[in-house]
Amino acid sequence: MQHLHEKTIASEVKYEGLIFTVAHDTVELENGKTAPREVINHNGGVCVIPVTENNEIYLVRQFRYPFKEITVEIPAGKLEKGEDPAECGRRELLEETGCTCTEYTYLGKLYPIPAYDTEIIHIYMAKGLESGAQSLDDDEFLEVEKVHLSKAVEMVMDGTILDAKTQIAVLKAARILGI
Amino acid sequence: MQHLHEKTIASEVKYEGLIFTVAHDTVELENGKTAPREVINHNGGVCVIPVTENNEIYLVRQFRYPFKEITVEIPAGKLEKGEDPAECGRRELLEETGCTCTEYTYLGKLYPIPAYDTEIIHIYMAKGLESGAQSLDDDEFLEVEKVHLSKAVEMVMDGTILDAKTQIAVLKAARILGI
Repeated sequence: MQHLHEKTIASEVKYEGLIFTVAHDTVELENGKTAPREVINHNGGVCVIPVTENNEIYLVRQFRYPFKEITVEIPAGKLEKGEDPAECGRRELLEETGCTCTEYTYLGKLYPIPAYDTEIIHIYMAKGLESGAQSLDDDEFLEVEKVHLSKAVEMVMDGTILDAKTQIAVLKAARILGI
Repeated sequence: MQHLHEKTIASEVKYEGLIFTVAHDTVELENGKTAPREVINHNGGVCVIPVTENNEIYLVRQFRYPFKEITVEIPAGKLEKGEDPAECGRRELLEETGCTCTEYTYLGKLYPIPAYDTEIIHIYMAKGLESGAQSLDDDEFLEVEKVHLSKAVEMVMDGTILDAKTQIAVLKAARILGI
């Protein structure tokens, strides 16, 4: 087998949930031995860093159940299977902050947990913002705030912002905008 | 109920795996309605960005089964339950690169997927490196390379490095070291 590669020799779905499925696979390694691999299959997500003309960004505070904590993140959402990431990002931006934008730039993607999860998150930067009304789902609760991008960088460096996609979007945007 | 908070009213373990378990919970929202929550429970991980006196860093290439791709990451590993993250990082650094270090700095933590996964990843920066022999597990295959931190930043910005913890560690280290 090719150096570093692994070949699937068995695969069993162990859990089919609402937002992901779990598979337990067996792989053949390059030394001929077998090993187990557990994989979360997820459709992926999109996040948007909305930057005003004064280099302020919109942040969202919401309760994150796995940590029983309120986190600080940029607007984001899950992709439906086959959905266009760019479109999903614009929709989430509008729903969570009420903003539309005239400039919309792709900042790249990230693998949150390449060891065991297929999720890919796409990042966009939105500029030329126009504010309107938030339009959250019935069961969605969050608070929006604006901070300067330089303050957001501090919040990443000092651990106030812990969400991975937000850390990356803030540090990438700051580098691009020379902040 | 407190604004933004959610209260667990039922919890059922749906899958007990080797590296994580999956729970399906029901929560009460602040509007009194109920909603489902799926949670991956994971012990967390540690990653280390090893920086030489010339500001080169060690990167690791390995096959990541969920993507069937070879990714570029910094040395990292899973925490055992109750294990000290700092110690785990030093061990993984030694196993994967053969390096020990005299300076070891905490760069903070990240939540890779706060929407549905309890995993927390801790980041350390290792300096004052002394090289020795790699000591991988029997079934662990990876390749180590050294690149300048400024090149690693380019690899984050252009999408060559997609792993979230590596993107964050590289961008944080670059900011700290003025690169």
